[in-house]
Amino acid sequence: MPKPKPAFSHLDATGAAKMVDVGHKPVQLRTATAAGELVCQCATIRLLRAQALPKGDVLAAARLAGILAAKRTDELIPLCHGLPLDSIAVDFTVRADRVLISATARTSAKTGVEMEALVAVTIAGLTLYDMMKAVDKTMVLGAVRVTAKTKV
Amino acid sequence: MPKPKPAFSHLDATGAAKMVDVGHKPVQLRTATAAGELVCQCATIRLLRAQALPKGDVLAAARLAGILAAKRTDELIPLCHGLPLDSIAVDFTVRADRVLISATARTSAKTGVEMEALVAVTIAGLTLYDMMKAVDKTMVLGAVRVTAKTKV
Amino acid sequence: MPKPKPAFSHLDATGAAKMVDVGHKPVQLRTATAAGELVCQCATIRLLRAQALPKGDVLAAARLAGILAAKRTDELIPLCHGLPLDSIAVDFTVRADRVLISATARTSAKTGVEMEALVAVTIAGLTLYDMMKAVDKTMVLGAVRVTAKTKV
Amino acid sequence: MPKPKPAFSHLDATGAAKMVDVGHKPVQLRTATAAGELVCQCATIRLLRAQALPKGDVLAAARLAGILAAKRTDELIPLCHGLPLDSIAVDFTVRADRVLISATARTSAKTGVEMEALVAVTIAGLTLYDMMKAVDKTMVLGAVRVTAKTKV
Amino acid sequence: MPKPKPAFSHLDATGAAKMVDVGHKPVQLRTATAAGELVCQCATIRLLRAQALPKGDVLAAARLAGILAAKRTDELIPLCHGLPLDSIAVDFTVRADRVLISATARTSAKTGVEMEALVAVTIAGLTLYDMMKAVDKTMVLGAVRVTAKTKV
Amino acid sequence: MPKPKPAFSHLDATGAAKMVDVGHKPVQLRTATAAGELVCQCATIRLLRAQALPKGDVLAAARLAGILAAKRTDELIPLCHGLPLDSIAVDFTVRADRVLISATARTSAKTGVEMEALVAVTIAGLTLYDMMKAVDKTMVLGAVRVTAKTKV
Repeated sequence: MPKPKPAFSHLDATGAAKMVDVGHKPVQLRTATAAGELVCQCATIRLLRAQALPKGDVLAAARLAGILAAKRTDELIPLCHGLPLDSIAVDFTVRADRVLISATARTSAKTGVEMEALVAVTIAGLTLYDMMKAVDKTMVLGAVRVTAKTKV
Repeated sequence: MPKPKPAFSHLDATGAAKMVDVGHKPVQLRTATAAGELVCQCATIRLLRAQALPKGDVLAAARLAGILAAKRTDELIPLCHGLPLDSIAVDFTVRADRVLISATARTSAKTGVEMEALVAVTIAGLTLYDMMKAVDKTMVLGAVRVTAKTKV
Repeated sequence: MPKPKPAFSHLDATGAAKMVDVGHKPVQLRTATAAGELVCQCATIRLLRAQALPKGDVLAAARLAGILAAKRTDELIPLCHGLPLDSIAVDFTVRADRVLISATARTSAKTGVEMEALVAVTIAGLTLYDMMKAVDKTMVLGAVRVTAKTKV
Repeated sequence: MPKPKPAFSHLDATGAAKMVDVGHKPVQLRTATAAGELVCQCATIRLLRAQALPKGDVLAAARLAGILAAKRTDELIPLCHGLPLDSIAVDFTVRADRVLISATARTSAKTGVEMEALVAVTIAGLTLYDMMKAVDKTMVLGAVRVTAKTKV
Repeated sequence: MPKPKPAFSHLDATGAAKMVDVGHKPVQLRTATAAGELVCQCATIRLLRAQALPKGDVLAAARLAGILAAKRTDELIPLCHGLPLDSIAVDFTVRADRVLISATARTSAKTGVEMEALVAVTIAGLTLYDMMKAVDKTMVLGAVRVTAKTKV
Repeated sequence: MPKPKPAFSHLDATGAAKMVDVGHKPVQLRTATAAGELVCQCATIRLLRAQALPKGDVLAAARLAGILAAKRTDELIPLCHGLPLDSIAVDFTVRADRVLISATARTSAKTGVEMEALVAVTIAGLTLYDMMKAVDKTMVLGAVRVTAKTKV
């Protein structure tokens, strides 16, 4: 731990929280992908496949909730900058005992979009949770992390 | 799986998403507690203890972000009802390799507040992630689940 | 026009806009239904049936957008009261040259929910417009009106 | 209908809704004008002229509601991009049996602003509806469409 | 200073911020009035009277901004509860060198509405500031305080 | 008062409010600093120093509320443009009978950020007010003004 001083970029010299100044940083094309999973009972997944997937509203609702939340990341995460997203996509893979969630955000901006991708994943996951909670009290949202990040 | 029909309460007979009608339900005092954890490198936790905890802004920022997000749950989770929260509290326990997060929401309403507690935990966790991501690229938010729910 | 004075309930004696005071009104179960239609080219409707309806995301997106907007009616319409919606549902009927949209809102409150139903219809209609505008520059949203209102 | 595949730009290959990636598009000066009308009883328009127009708050309220809503278009229409509006203006023409509404949005961005103009028109129209609904139960909002669009 | 312990009701025993639990408090009819003033150059007030007051849009815009902000107080002030406002009114008195602003909020709720009245006054004042800042760089918003509070 | 016509830039020729068109203005690095003060009883300040400052949550909450509100200035002040803030910082100085508040906003945009700085100061001040109002009914928020503005 040789250089702890610059470590917490959101704290000023007195320890106060601040938004990092990105005024000097160049606008670059940036992408970030985040992933997570909602672990369910197998019976819940069977119901999801039987009742909800033919029509699509359950996954569509979760996808849209994730997209909408990503666009409001700077309202939710206090020290995030407002960013104009070029795109945001949310995808699901339904496994026997869980739903895998991933989200990819792209922007042309002075700072990265991993928080946007993470917000999309978590809100999409919680929206699934909300729609399936009547049949499954055991669900756990986990493994939420950034899986890729690029800057060109 | 004897009664699959009522299972997905947010889907109507055609499979379309809908907000569940709670008009006939009584107003009751309801509470819900959710928990989760942000797993970090031990060095990150040491930095958190050394730099951020004496002053308090890091955990304070995460706590407030969770509280504010909980109050906007119905804007984030499409089929949630708007609820007047009587209170919402967010707490942290800093362990050697993770920060444990919990949130308890209370309301006097026609429907429960587990989604409010879950939103508080995830947004508090992501706010911590945001403030520590400059020093730790390995963090994972997980174990997000409801730990208690009451109705009186 | 014998009694013009009480006519514009949102204007005070000086002509200034104000939120009508509902403090003295009883809480009642209230419902309102609004309707509207998005008139399209027949080719657009054929594409909608062929590409989008099997999967459902187009109508699901419009439905959710309407539901979410209805919950924020008091942020959009300046003199509307914030109301706790018991439920809000948005439905579509796809005709040869148009999509019919209807929305029904329910609340237990001191004032009615026709604005919530109208907001749901218009935002659902504009969301359809947004998703179909790449193929049809002629669409018109119209016939937006309240079709039913009850108070018990 | 020779090339239906690219038609619905907001659907991916599996039919899932997505925000169109505009990362490769150039920033251009873009404008869009939308129009609509709120059809009323003639007596309502007479009241509007007599009571509300001298002071101006009714049209001012509708204008501001339209402007504010236009700035939040990406929160209301799920697949819209957040755009920095250079300007947004909302105008009214009061006719014997209706109020004509128009809105013009301008931006320097990678994608167009017709949705911003449409949102301004509809929310301005519904705000008028809200303020006049106590005296007229027959109003209909209609003819909402894009009337001009430019890109330089 | 004999009893400092209960003083800061928004801090728990460890000093962490929390929303005060109002679950046990009775619903009561509550009102609060706040006031403030925007001090300007006399020439600015003369312009306001000459150009803006005949038409009314300047004060109307400030009034509506105050009303809208008051409805979102719990989004702006982190530890405020969401309250269903029965009414909110904003008034102005134009003096030779300042504009006096007052706002009265009413609710039937478990906690008071002074923050709603204060938010209405400040945002109304800043909206005036925004519209007059091109002609006056010396304006000061001040004397913002609660002037009356009732509970029945 | 030789040239009153261009004075009120937010009014068009008919007196209607409008967002000023900034489409032709260059993107420049702009900063603005605003200040204000919350005048309290001395006993309140002593309590603040004794109870709240060691832990930091009170000032942290006010600081974050100011930062979050600044990012939403265009939602609160009707004719403000949405701006991508490069940074926003809020600082406090605790005096014997008041808390001094200042905020500095930076952007690279076509228009200035004094409204963002003013919104940060007022919402930070009202958040302090909210947390201290249980012990002090005499507080006044005042002296809110722009103290510096630059454009490069």
